[in-house]
Order: sequence, then structure tokens, then C-alpha cells
Amino acid sequence: MKLLVVNQRAFPVMASPLGLRFIASKACLRCYSSSALKWEGGVSMVQGASRGIGLEFVKQLLEKNEKGHVVATCRNPDVASGLLHLKNRYAERLSILPLDLTIESTIEASAKSIRERFGSLNLLINASGILSIPDVLQPETTLTKVEKSSLLLAYEINAVGPIVEIKHMWPLLKIGGGSGTERDVAVVANLSARVGSIGDNHLGGWHSYRSSKTALNQLTKTVSVEFARRKDPIICILLHPGTVDTDLSRPFQRNVPEGKLFTKEFSVQKLLGIINNAKKHDNGKFFAWDGQEIPW
Amino acid sequence: MKLLVVNQRAFPVMASPLGLRFIASKACLRCYSSSALKWEGGVSMVQGASRGIGLEFVKQLLEKNEKGHVVATCRNPDVASGLLHLKNRYAERLSILPLDLTIESTIEASAKSIRERFGSLNLLINASGILSIPDVLQPETTLTKVEKSSLLLAYEINAVGPIVEIKHMWPLLKIGGGSGTERDVAVVANLSARVGSIGDNHLGGWHSYRSSKTALNQLTKTVSVEFARRKDPIICILLHPGTVDTDLSRPFQRNVPEGKLFTKEFSVQKLLGIINNAKKHDNGKFFAWDGQEIPW
Ligand SMILES: NC(=O)c1ccc[n+]([C@@H]2O[C@H](COP(=O)([O-])OP(=O)(O)OC[C@H]3O[C@@H](n4cnc5c(N)ncnc54)[C@H](OP(=O)(O)O)[C@@H]3O)[C@@H](O)[C@H]2O)c1
Ligand SMILES: NC(=O)c1ccc[n+]([C@@H]2O[C@H](COP(=O)([O-])OP(=O)(O)OC[C@H]3O[C@@H](n4cnc5c(N)ncnc54)[C@H](OP(=O)(O)O)[C@@H]3O)[C@@H](O)[C@H]2O)c1
Repeated sequence: MKLLVVNQRAFPVMASPLGLRFIASKACLRCYSSSALKWEGGVSMVQGASRGIGLEFVKQLLEKNEKGHVVATCRNPDVASGLLHLKNRYAERLSILPLDLTIESTIEASAKSIRERFGSLNLLINASGILSIPDVLQPETTLTKVEKSSLLLAYEINAVGPIVEIKHMWPLLKIGGGSGTERDVAVVANLSARVGSIGDNHLGGWHSYRSSKTALNQLTKTVSVEFARRKDPIICILLHPGTVDTDLSRPFQRNVPEGKLFTKEFSVQKLLGIINNAKKHDNGKFFAWDGQEIPW
Repeated sequence: MKLLVVNQRAFPVMASPLGLRFIASKACLRCYSSSALKWEGGVSMVQGASRGIGLEFVKQLLEKNEKGHVVATCRNPDVASGLLHLKNRYAERLSILPLDLTIESTIEASAKSIRERFGSLNLLINASGILSIPDVLQPETTLTKVEKSSLLLAYEINAVGPIVEIKHMWPLLKIGGGSGTERDVAVVANLSARVGSIGDNHLGGWHSYRSSKTALNQLTKTVSVEFARRKDPIICILLHPGTVDTDLSRPFQRNVPEGKLFTKEFSVQKLLGIINNAKKHDNGKFFAWDGQEIPW
């Protein structure tokens, strides 16, 4: 039996998803805007969870918080074998929803689904990202190779997508805040990259990826300023995971110095440490895996 | 009579545009890649020259350098009354070419035209930019109003356009360097904006414009790193003109403190001072109208 807390009063509810949805949506209708629903252990969403760092976030969130719920989204749930494997193990504590960042209706549908099932959200991790796609997108080695189509594609997925995502999750995060978690606030954690830093750009190249992550940094900062001004119980942070052994980095791992290629397990453990300890004064900041701030 | 200098030897040529084009293109065929053509007074290009700050750059460049040539580009030369007025006055010293940043073929055509007529370029000012377009684009006052279409439109015109432009002008700038000017180097000056600074973002809002300018900053820095690595005689700088009385700022001038709204004349005079004094060590930097560096 699980506890659904509505307006600070606890109602016992059956663990069946249908039953839950019914009660939650009735509750939503009544008190949606009054920080109504609190889930013990908190509700976390990982967007871009099919593989790599996103999948590892889902795994560690489920492992480390026995009571927490995780909503994992990806483009094709049917073939997301890593997530399906976790679903077998964690059953009701993991929901898998379809979401393609380039199709806003899928973002809206996932927000609706979370609203109906949980009524609130305490953590949103945007873990999706593209650097290269065979025959479509290659990180540029020189200005001569810069193409409008690549710049726009990287921008759409790496910068626009996460912000549109936050727009739709905002009401849920506002209701959730830190309740059910060890934090005072809900957290939005956007996966950025050190190469998105302008101040740290000494190598050049990778125009499309770099500028999309720089723009993500600015958009996240912009959103963080509004959340603070409105005194919403939400902070936004940007995270650089280090160079991590995933599909994204694989074609470029040759030049990584010995010992500098992290496992997903190590990187996500560090990043979850930053997220779980996040305080209001961290709002709008850009952290590397080791907690160091990265210059803009 | 004008002087066309080919391989350091001066050839007198007639001032007729046709004659010029003919001689220049023959010279191009012979020695295009060997820093062949030097124009006394230098050749400057102002992209986005129909009105506002761009038009004022054209005017001051023509006024302040009696021997310099200016190529002014805009979307619709036929209705660019300010430019046509200057053309009446400066005749051969001003060329007007059609260029729409969203149509790459028009950028290529202008590069071809400059190559044929002048063979080189010493200054490229990207002065175009959009902040609001009635019924199409409005600076966002809150996250709720952020739309994918606005983010992509601002990015395409404010960030992608200038970089694709630089890509096509690169060979001409490499040939031009500082020759014919008082500088050691050719200059690419991209009009950015203080609101593109992440470090300086305390107000939030204006998501589309802000992030497009931040991305422009990163792209310009990225290009500047490559130019330096290749030891090309070109530097790239980013300029914030202040709040300037133009069509762009007009709808937002109400909140500008007394004395803080600059005339175009004042702002461009300051910015030309920065451009004309630019040195190699300024490469990749972001300057306000008063010469102060702006944080990323
Ligand atoms: N790995 C590194 O060294 C490194 C370094 C710095 C920053 N980062 C950043 O960390 C984040 C995670 O990277 P990773 O290494 O885990 O990459 P990854 O293994 O390549 O995974 C990328 C994820 O993004 C998803 N994705 C791509 N396009 C999407 C779209 N349109 N809508 C929704 N999801 C989409 C992919 O889903 P599909 O399975 O459907 O394609 C996949 O789940 C990225 O933001 C990346 O830029 C990584
Ligand atoms: N004014 C300010 O207070 C201020 C402050 C900070 C930064 N800035 C920056 O300074 C630059 C100049 O601004 P401004 O005040 O002079 O603006 P403006 O008066 O509105 O002029 C904008 C110029 O950009 C051109 N343009 C728009 N879309 C274009 C496209 N697709 N292709 C080519 N040209 C295009 C316009 O041409 P059409 O005539 O064809 O539309 C016009 O010449 C901009 O980059 C702006 O962001 C201005």
C-alpha cells in the first residue's frame, strides 16, 4: 500500500496504476495549483533515458532511493532494452513514456501523464543530447565544414528541446518543490558540456555542438532567473559529466588521456551527489562532475 | 582615375564599374590565392546595411576614409532608401549588393561579386539582427511564452547567418588582411548584445534573442581560435553598441534611463574606434561601445 498525500492529509490508495490515476486526477482537478500532491521519496523524471548517461541516472535513482518514483522518457520505449530491463526489476516504481524532444506534442503528453499519475515532480534531468549522427551530423573540424542544417539541428535538440520541456513541466515542479526528498527545492538538471563554455574554448571546432550547449547554458540561466524572481521552489543547474564512455563520446575517445574517460557509473554517482545536495544558491550555476564551477 | 594594385604594381584603371570588374576578374584568375589585390583605403563590407546601425556604419566608413570602398548588403536594395541616398553621393566608392542571411546562395553570390571586383576584403561587419517582428517574433517576458519557432528563427538570423557569412568571406579576408588600412589585420566585427552575456544575465526574459546572441558569441570565439591557429591575418571581435535609437530598440525604449539611449552616430563612432584600433590580441573578445570587455 502506498500513501498519497493530498492537502497534507494522507489517503491510503491501492498501488494499481489505474486506481492511482483516478484518484490523482480527481485530486488534481480540485487542488492542482495548491501544492497538493506529495509523493514519499519524490518523483524524478529523466528525459533521454534510453541509453548512456540518462539510462544510468534512472538506474541509480531507483537503486538509491527505495521509495522514489522515476519517470523515464525516450523516443522509442519498445526498443529501449535497458529501460525494459529495469522495468522488470522495479515494476511500479518506474514509468516509461515516449518523448521525442523535436515533437512538442509528445512533451505535452508526458506532462499530462505525470500530472494525472503523480500530480507533481521533484526532479527533471534533461540527459538527451546529440554530437554526431552518421550521415547527418559531424562535429566540424573547420569553419569550411560549418553548415546551416547542422547548426539548426544541434540547436533544436540540445538547446530548444530541454527548454520547451521545462516549460511544460514547470507547473508540476512548482507543486513538487523539494517535498518527499531531502532537498528544499525541486531541481532541473540540464546536461551541458564543458565545450559549451566560451571562456574555456581554446581549441575551436565542433561549432554546432558547442554553440548549442552555450545557448542551453544561457536559456537555463534565463529560466533560473525567472524561477528565483517568482520565488518558485525550483532551481536549475547545468552539469558537465566529464568525458564519459557512451555512444556519444565513442567516435572521439582516441584523444582522451589515460584515466580521463569515466564510466557512466562514476559520472552519474558524482552528478547525483551534486543534485541531491543542491541548494537555492546553486540556482543558475554550471558545475562539472567534481562540483567545480565552469566559467561561461 | 583610380589605382588598382596587382602584385604590388599599380595599374591605372578607369572608374567604370564594368571596366573595373573586367580587370579585377582577370587579375583574380591569375593570382587569386597569392594575396594579389590591394585596394588603397581598404575594402569594407557591411552586412545588414539597409537601416539602423548598419546603415550608419556605411555612412561613417565612407565619410572617414576618403579612399576606402564599401560594399553594403541588404535584403532589398531597391527600397533601401538610405543606401541609395549614399550611392548618389559616393558613387563608385559604394557598392550595394542583395543579401538575405537566410538564403545562402545570396551570400555566395555576394562573395563572388566581391572576389571579382576587389579580390579581397579588409573588414566585415555583421550588423543585421532581429529582436522582434510584428506578428512573428516577440521577446519573451516569461518561460510560458517560449516557442520553438521563435527560438529557431532568432538563432537562424542572429547566430547561424553571420557565421555562414564569415565562412564565405574567409578566403577574401585572408587575402586582404590589413593591407590598405591602418591595421595589421582584417577584422570581422559581429554585432552582439550585452543581453547575450550569461554572466551578466540578472533580469531573465528575451529567451530567443539572448540565446541567439550567446550562441553568436560562442561561434565567433570558435572561429577566432581557428584563425589564430592558422596564423591568418584576421581577427574576430564581438561588439555591444549600447542601447541605440533604431527600429530594433524602439518598442522597448520606455525603460531606458535618461541619457542612456545613444544615437546611431555616437554608437558607430565609438565602435569604429574599436575596430580601427583592433590588434591581434583583441581576437575573440567581446567589447562594449566604450571599449570595456563584457563577461561571457
Ligand atoms: N558522453 C560524454 O562524454 C559527454 C560529455 C559532455 C556532455 N555530455 C552530455 O551528456 C548528455 C548525455 O550524453 P550521453 O553520452 O549519454 O549520450 P548518448 O549515449 O548518445 O545518449 C543520448 C541520448 O539522447 C537521446 N536523444 C537524442 N535525440 C533525441 C530526441 N530528439 N528526443 C529525445 N531524446 C533524444 C538518445 O535517444 P535515442 O536512443 O532515441 O537516440 C539517447 O538516449 C548529452 O546531453 C551530452 O551532450 C556527454
Ligand atoms: N539598437 C540597439 O539598441 C541594439 C542593442 C544591442 C545590440 N544591437 C544589435 O546591433 C545590430 C544592429 O541593430 P539595429 O538596431 O541597427 O537594428 P535594425 O535597425 O532593426 O536593423 C536590423 C537590420 O538587420 C537586417 N536584417 C534582418 N533580417 C535580415 C536577414 N534575414 N538578412 C539580412 N539582413 C537582415 C535588416 O534588414 P531589413 O531592412 O531588410 O529588414 C536591418 O538592416 C543587431 O545585430 C542588433 O541585435 C542593437
